[in-house]
Amino acid sequence: MKVLDDQERNEALISLPGWTHDAGRDAIVRNFECGDFVSAFSFMTAVAIMAEKVDHHPEWSNVYGKVSIVLTTHDAGGLTPKDIELARKITAIGPSS
Amino acid sequence: MKVLDDQERNEALISLPGWTHDAGRDAIVRNFECGDFVSAFSFMTAVAIMAEKVDHHPEWSNVYGKVSIVLTTHDAGGLTPKDIELARKITAIGPSS
Repeated sequence: MKVLDDQERNEALISLPGWTHDAGRDAIVRNFECGDFVSAFSFMTAVAIMAEKVDHHPEWSNVYGKVSIVLTTHDAGGLTPKDIELARKITAIGPSS
Repeated sequence: MKVLDDQERNEALISLPGWTHDAGRDAIVRNFECGDFVSAFSFMTAVAIMAEKVDHHPEWSNVYGKVSIVLTTHDAGGLTPKDIELARKITAIGPSS
């Protein structure tokens, strides 16, 4: 799968509020604030099931109510449509903050 | 809750193989290799339930089969017996690598 060029990435990010581009890694990143640990881990569980279903997995971290997600496609060496698609799914079920 | 002094911490770490002290944060850290994403997230789910039960939560990150865990007690500003106890529980259910 081919990595997105600048224009493709910028167009995709317009419809992904809160996600930003990490140029150093060619990844997209977003922090979610879920309020408490159970809410954060519930969100993570939903993301985990989605990620496994599409066989594309996040790099992510959690501290109490905060979940930080990094998406990039290791095999392709950068951002691909798989990352954009997973970001859309995550955004749809995530908290709005 | 009081933070552990050097001797208390060193004694505790003897019985926690794989865990190391991060002096900069006064935390203990360990990486677990679970083999694949479902195994890693299953392990995390068990840890999450234990953590919530004792109301003491890890800082952690996951990339596919790898789970990295940091334990410290924010309220106390360093490592306390709560971290040692949680590390023991995590070690007991975690993969051995």
